Amino acid sequence: MIRKMFEEGITLKKKHGEDKVYDFSLGNPNVDHPEAFKRELIKVADQEIKLKHGYTPNAGYPETRLAVARKISQTTGLKMTADHIVMSCGAGGALNVILKALLDPGDEVIILTPFFVEYPFYIENYDGVVKYVPTRPDFSPDIAAIGRAITRKTKAVIINSPNNPTGKVYSQKSITDLARLFRKKGRERKRPIYLVADEPYSEIVFDGVKVPSTLKAYSNSIIAYSYSKTLSLPGERIGYIAVHPRIHEADDLMAALILCTRILGFVNAPALMQRIVTHLQHVTVDVKIYQKKRDLLCRGLAAAGYEFAKPQGAFYLFVKSPIPDDAAFVHRLLQENILVVPGSGFGCPGYFRIAFCVEDSTIANALEGFARAIQDFRPQKISRPARRGSSGRNP
Amino acid sequence: MIRKMFEEGITLKKKHGEDKVYDFSLGNPNVDHPEAFKRELIKVADQEIKLKHGYTPNAGYPETRLAVARKISQTTGLKMTADHIVMSCGAGGALNVILKALLDPGDEVIILTPFFVEYPFYIENYDGVVKYVPTRPDFSPDIAAIGRAITRKTKAVIINSPNNPTGKVYSQKSITDLARLFRKKGRERKRPIYLVADEPYSEIVFDGVKVPSTLKAYSNSIIAYSYSKTLSLPGERIGYIAVHPRIHEADDLMAALILCTRILGFVNAPALMQRIVTHLQHVTVDVKIYQKKRDLLCRGLAAAGYEFAKPQGAFYLFVKSPIPDDAAFVHRLLQENILVVPGSGFGCPGYFRIAFCVEDSTIANALEGFARAIQDFRPQKISRPARRGSSGRNP
Repeated sequence: MIRKMFEEGITLKKKHGEDKVYDFSLGNPNVDHPEAFKRELIKVADQEIKLKHGYTPNAGYPETRLAVARKISQTTGLKMTADHIVMSCGAGGALNVILKALLDPGDEVIILTPFFVEYPFYIENYDGVVKYVPTRPDFSPDIAAIGRAITRKTKAVIINSPNNPTGKVYSQKSITDLARLFRKKGRERKRPIYLVADEPYSEIVFDGVKVPSTLKAYSNSIIAYSYSKTLSLPGERIGYIAVHPRIHEADDLMAALILCTRILGFVNAPALMQRIVTHLQHVTVDVKIYQKKRDLLCRGLAAAGYEFAKPQGAFYLFVKSPIPDDAAFVHRLLQENILVVPGSGFGCPGYFRIAFCVEDSTIANALEGFARAIQDFRPQKISRPARRGSSGRNP
Repeated sequence: MIRKMFEEGITLKKKHGEDKVYDFSLGNPNVDHPEAFKRELIKVADQEIKLKHGYTPNAGYPETRLAVARKISQTTGLKMTADHIVMSCGAGGALNVILKALLDPGDEVIILTPFFVEYPFYIENYDGVVKYVPTRPDFSPDIAAIGRAITRKTKAVIINSPNNPTGKVYSQKSITDLARLFRKKGRERKRPIYLVADEPYSEIVFDGVKVPSTLKAYSNSIIAYSYSKTLSLPGERIGYIAVHPRIHEADDLMAALILCTRILGFVNAPALMQRIVTHLQHVTVDVKIYQKKRDLLCRGLAAAGYEFAKPQGAFYLFVKSPIPDDAAFVHRLLQENILVVPGSGFGCPGYFRIAFCVEDSTIANALEGFARAIQDFRPQKISRPARRGSSGRNP
């Protein structure tokens, strides 16, 4: 779906010119990397180090892993060491390594709809079976529904907070309740349920919201992190896997993660980026810039009559389609040269996703088109929230 | 096996000091990257480009792919375009993407023993079945044996020339004969056999040897290339996949390679390295440095009485063990603080591998130990070549 919009976008841009097309289809951060990143890059580029670009250990440079462990220790109070960290090729690489390490064929992995479009692929890459559980109407995890979805075969649950596509940040209560559920089910089954927390947006939060720590809440947690959004360098493929110090069979799991990093062909996270992020553990892009874009967009869409929950983090807005057929409404927006992604692509029909990591002018100039599009459907406007579809992976 | 030697090495180095241990276990290039690479890195680091580190297309930057296509066109005479290239995270990433794109569960992939230790993992990652075919005594492909190993289920054959662990460069006749065999078998089965050529060492060749082009010889060829050895930057994970313009179902295959780059979590090859290699298509490390190391090592080992074929490329020497039990002989070398890898690890017992991408002094200082070790077994020295084991993946 995203790719289709991307291709539609290329055609439209050729026809009408770049600045006349309002492309909200891709989550490609448009806030530039922090100056500190550039300084560090130039410093490292210039350093005379023998074999500076040689293989690193499969898990990454010890000093990089230590820097990550220290940061997590500071924020969580846990005693993390370099041995609990494996540097990865972004969160996408991290999740593939984690799932390859965890899954036996036929193992079930629960994901919450709406979901990041790549999860089903990642799970099926390792012969896992995807189980879709809808979130509640406010996009928070539905603890009871997750409980009902857990079977003997459930190996892991993936959560993503701040969330793509909804911008939802899971509350401390949600995380605590999830942890309690997993502990209970783990005891019953005498096998742990792994909580895989995909957290590339953990630093992209608004209005002083805090992202509750999954590591602190639950010992069978594994974090997949990426610097892609925090430092605006998604093309450089640098992130990490962090494992709770008291996770079930910790030594075997770490060995598996390191082996899988090797045999999936990642071998090691890019060496130069490892060196750089070692010194940028507390640096982030200016999040206020995204917050301003969110506010501009939310004000405009609310005034036009759209319904949505104001995102607390990430850079996505998940908007209720004024008509149940989200694809049809997305098509209507296309006539305004506005590119968004139908909710069906995220397993959640009746909605569409706006990635607002774009220029302020793109948002400002698109608002008129958004307003015109919803006007067409005013007479039929549904006053009660549309029921979201329960699940189903979209082709 | 390699990892075990690596760990033995750490223990030995702690005990005796770094300079008293002769570590030939890892293929980590020790010739520094070319000055042109550093210049290009500093230039790119300093450039002001909006979102310089953003996502690239999954296949890579169009200009990088074009630069690669031009280079291959020049050397082969084929009409390659950017559309035949997918940038990858090194050759390891390239091979995983290729195998994921090609294989259905149960498909067979032929590899030639001795083989690069990661191939069986890569194939089994995608539920492929590994078929081992021994090379001839001079380590060239045994065309008749490969022909006999091809079944209805054979999807691909992986070759690696210049070869790890033998340093063998396959002759033009070998490549031509392989191509003829695959064309014949392809016609008989009415389905193509893909030739996957793993070519990270194609620029590391000695004595003016030329590496024959697989692309020129056979249209169902796919190249997995890495800049790791050519530019001495294995830690940066940059390489490419090149597909013959007339390969079977070219469009579908390219789409599959791009999709697999995405869903395996690579997403795109590291952006900064893509920018750099665009301008370094004709740059290589000083290969003469490796040639000198090879000559120093070969002279010393020949004088001590070892038997081996002088490598024509790469930076490995595959030496016949003076006793059939290669692990026992490797253990004897350990007593001399010499670390090498038993041939069993490459599916070829009775041999051991020396990675000579080390300091000249390491080679010079180790020769005495090599000489002492073989002396122990002189009385029992076997005068005829030991039969190499036929196959069998080593645990």
